[in-house]
Amino acid sequence: MYKAPLDDIAFTLKQVAGLKPAIDAGLLGDLGEDLVDAILSEAGRFAGEEVAPLYKVGDEVGAVLKDAEVTMPPGWRDLYRRWVEGGWNGLSGPEEFGGQALPISVAMAVLEMWNSASMAFGIGPTLTMGAIEALEKHAAPVLKDKYLAKLVSGEWMATMNLTEPQAGSDLAALRARAERAEDGTYRIFGQKIFITYGEHDFTDNIVHLVLARLPDAPAGTRGISLFLVPKFLVGDDGVPGARNDVFCSGIEHKLGIHASPTCTMIYGDGFKGQAPGAVGWLIGEENKGLACMFTMMNNARLSVGMQGVAVAEAATQKAIAYANERRQGKAGGYDGPGMAPIVHHPDVQRNLLTMKALTQAARAIAYNCAHAIDMGRLAATEAERGHWQARANLLTPLAKAFSTDVGVDVASLGVQVHGGMGFIEETGAAAYLRDARIAPIYEGTNGIQAIDLVVRKLPLEGGEHVHGYIAELKAVADAVRDSNRDGFGRTAARLDEALDAVSEATRFLLSATAEGRQDEALAGATPYLRLISLAAGGAYVAQGALADETGVRTALCRFFAENLLGETRALADSVLGGAASLAAAGQSLISA
Amino acid sequence: MYKAPLDDIAFTLKQVAGLKPAIDAGLLGDLGEDLVDAILSEAGRFAGEEVAPLYKVGDEVGAVLKDAEVTMPPGWRDLYRRWVEGGWNGLSGPEEFGGQALPISVAMAVLEMWNSASMAFGIGPTLTMGAIEALEKHAAPVLKDKYLAKLVSGEWMATMNLTEPQAGSDLAALRARAERAEDGTYRIFGQKIFITYGEHDFTDNIVHLVLARLPDAPAGTRGISLFLVPKFLVGDDGVPGARNDVFCSGIEHKLGIHASPTCTMIYGDGFKGQAPGAVGWLIGEENKGLACMFTMMNNARLSVGMQGVAVAEAATQKAIAYANERRQGKAGGYDGPGMAPIVHHPDVQRNLLTMKALTQAARAIAYNCAHAIDMGRLAATEAERGHWQARANLLTPLAKAFSTDVGVDVASLGVQVHGGMGFIEETGAAAYLRDARIAPIYEGTNGIQAIDLVVRKLPLEGGEHVHGYIAELKAVADAVRDSNRDGFGRTAARLDEALDAVSEATRFLLSATAEGRQDEALAGATPYLRLISLAAGGAYVAQGALADETGVRTALCRFFAENLLGETRALADSVLGGAASLAAAGQSLISA
Repeated sequence: MYKAPLDDIAFTLKQVAGLKPAIDAGLLGDLGEDLVDAILSEAGRFAGEEVAPLYKVGDEVGAVLKDAEVTMPPGWRDLYRRWVEGGWNGLSGPEEFGGQALPISVAMAVLEMWNSASMAFGIGPTLTMGAIEALEKHAAPVLKDKYLAKLVSGEWMATMNLTEPQAGSDLAALRARAERAEDGTYRIFGQKIFITYGEHDFTDNIVHLVLARLPDAPAGTRGISLFLVPKFLVGDDGVPGARNDVFCSGIEHKLGIHASPTCTMIYGDGFKGQAPGAVGWLIGEENKGLACMFTMMNNARLSVGMQGVAVAEAATQKAIAYANERRQGKAGGYDGPGMAPIVHHPDVQRNLLTMKALTQAARAIAYNCAHAIDMGRLAATEAERGHWQARANLLTPLAKAFSTDVGVDVASLGVQVHGGMGFIEETGAAAYLRDARIAPIYEGTNGIQAIDLVVRKLPLEGGEHVHGYIAELKAVADAVRDSNRDGFGRTAARLDEALDAVSEATRFLLSATAEGRQDEALAGATPYLRLISLAAGGAYVAQGALADETGVRTALCRFFAENLLGETRALADSVLGGAASLAAAGQSLISA
Repeated sequence: MYKAPLDDIAFTLKQVAGLKPAIDAGLLGDLGEDLVDAILSEAGRFAGEEVAPLYKVGDEVGAVLKDAEVTMPPGWRDLYRRWVEGGWNGLSGPEEFGGQALPISVAMAVLEMWNSASMAFGIGPTLTMGAIEALEKHAAPVLKDKYLAKLVSGEWMATMNLTEPQAGSDLAALRARAERAEDGTYRIFGQKIFITYGEHDFTDNIVHLVLARLPDAPAGTRGISLFLVPKFLVGDDGVPGARNDVFCSGIEHKLGIHASPTCTMIYGDGFKGQAPGAVGWLIGEENKGLACMFTMMNNARLSVGMQGVAVAEAATQKAIAYANERRQGKAGGYDGPGMAPIVHHPDVQRNLLTMKALTQAARAIAYNCAHAIDMGRLAATEAERGHWQARANLLTPLAKAFSTDVGVDVASLGVQVHGGMGFIEETGAAAYLRDARIAPIYEGTNGIQAIDLVVRKLPLEGGEHVHGYIAELKAVADAVRDSNRDGFGRTAARLDEALDAVSEATRFLLSATAEGRQDEALAGATPYLRLISLAAGGAYVAQGALADETGVRTALCRFFAENLLGETRALADSVLGGAASLAAAGQSLISA
């Protein structure tokens, strides 16, 4: 059973992501290290003792749809209520509406724990948090007053409605339509698919944020507006009243996260005989919906990245526990009675250390991204805030894509460590792989993240930002070298090589995009994302090892550097020289 | 729906694995290329038209246990009967007992097709084939006469019973026991788990091959004997009669291959009130059972490797088809109407080409291994046969482990290419990943394969064999260079670098094992297996491209060399320098 790794989470947050310096600099007001520790500790308890025990019933029973209503797995409704009562939903929400306005970095560390205990549970509130942010930034005061307090407390939940059958990665193809009503509201019509927590019995109302087009909207993404469409219309007293014309017509039968209802939502079809048209309220301006939605999406991308970290952590814990129990054969390092616990076999150790090291690196990247978001709001000067916002923009695709790839790879290694038992569902190792597999796909596939990184993020500040970032990571390599600690082995050299590879690939991609060699840049996007993530992750792990006076983190850092950083050279070569072969061979894939 | 890639299978078999030179040299008697093509074509038809359509019901309904009897999914019993009537079971079986004695390489190519259509279907007959080989080589004539013809025709099926709860990778821990009876037979007692096709309704009898210990057997693996234990005792007339004291007490609820019943088998527990003790017949000599079982296991390892190739092929086909249908966004290379089919996006092409290239490489390695087994029997001189047997021994762990890792990786990429649809079970992409995940585990985990490669296979002929093999692959790199074909890009240089890395790592590991630095060798086993497999796979793909006069294989070869071979340097570095960090960090994994 999952036990929150409080030490590693707190250490990474404070020493590697930068929370401690920010606290020390007084940027976080009353928030001190003790309070952070207390929050983490209580979240860890709740995740381990309350959420994790309900994982299995969630996976086995799943969410069930009947007559347009979704029943959540046994015990889950109560779990959600207890979780809301614990005040967990409003952790980073605005104080004006009852939130605790804690840093995003702390919220993300806590979110990791819910997701380690159950990804299907963790994903629901994530969408509510994104909606809170979108409403806070873009909604009219009357909408804020009606909805935000309930969403911040968790009394109601929210959803994001983007995808349609023909419009997934490409929102320009969106067809859902909105009509202006005379009272200033709108009527929404259309079908949305893959709507996470689109329908459930956790809360008395569900607030849908829906992208749709007005009749006179321009084509493409500049003609999309964002609407708030509640499941039940809310009276001036704040009480849910009449049923709105939106319903769930189906839920998906998925590989994993079975307890998360993935809904097809029908808007404006005259549900239960009412006059067709779901009543909606505009958020922000007409035709500017995509900008509002991006507020949600950036947050959600980091949150999905946390899911990758979370499932990797849970899978690693489970595999290490099993490897200490399961005995097979003899091992050099074991001189006890009977067969050796398989954790003594070098090949098993390689798998487990790879799992641990990748998890730690992904966590460090994600927390650094979260901290950058915080600093984008908290830093003293506008220039500093701009710097941190650029940093958050740069790191978001890494936090989303690298972490979720790590989630899949680590969960798969976890199955392998369990041997035959790993393939048996009752063991629970396979379920992590099933759950993890969605995270590289939703909230923008990892391919989309890589393209975003190369096309939009690298050119930030004319490329200066990413080069500055690489220089910061280089300084870590220098510090490792200067530390003269034997235990680091060849860490400094390996980090240098990796970061040189990043520099070279970065320059190449910046030139390619600047010179209009778009396909060359796109061809290198995915290997580049992994390249910079591995190098950054390695540097962060080293930074942690340097900051750790006990020295226990040094050995894993060395393992990372000497076993996992080598891949960076190959990735750089793919970026630099892979496009031509891709273009040549790619033709063969296209059907006549 | 799966369509057998007859061109690539036939080409790889003949031009890359060496079937054509063997036919031309007259080593295969009457077997000509035309007959091979006809067999492949008919197998492809059966796999695509008869097996594949029953995949889904197999996955959804699965095998069902009730009262110790397993009912196979609807339509599957008939499917098996038709398959047997087609003569497919006896393809490589001995002519003396009704088989067609075709080369193993042809049998493996055909086996690939059954497994592409359904891994759960393909795995059953695989075990029968292994049992046929074990009986043919080791059983007394009376046993052969009673069982072999029925097993060769497929009228009966067979199983392999090794694993017990405490004895998986380490068979020394085996506890099932055998007692001598006065009539020369034995009575078997004990529990076996993870027995594939241990019980089913395909055939009227099931022949279990069971490892057990005699009361006076030495401890460890030298005290294990192999027994034949039929489900129904067979009279002198060859007709199944009384029920033997063996039954299936449970089947596993697995991640994938749901239609393959994975059984717990109970021997000698007095099933249905009979006197306890399953009647068994000794195969080979007492206490020499492991050697007999290895006959089955080597064959089975290659067969499981074919499953990796098979599921990679099926997943690749499905992903390419989807990428040609699904439209999203704009792409540089697409100037047709509407959104571009996603196959035009470079990032999608990278995924698809990676899938194609890895599948082709894994297929080439597996077929080369199969051909080496054939040549080990057919080559003209004893020295040649010895050479080929060593080659088969060397390639078996590659064919098993690399191919099955490729199966998982490619199936996972296949899910990714499908985007959100990939996570929906009805799409079928996720099912390939679920199925593929068992192959790196069963028949000796891939970690065990890597250890076998490093500890037992590299030292063959004092290391001369593997170095000779590397030299052969080097010659391919030279031939690419000499070809002066532009389309190869940097293929020759990349192959050279990869093979140099293999040479260096090989010398290191041979020294480590020779000098008793066992843990260093074991620490490098897994990266070494992938290293030599990638280099060999790359060379085989290049060999195919050189042999292909149409030139269409050149572009994929270049893609492989310029995008996938770069990893080899990093893998070599892990082998050469990773052990120290692994040993240092490994201690942290061990529970106090």
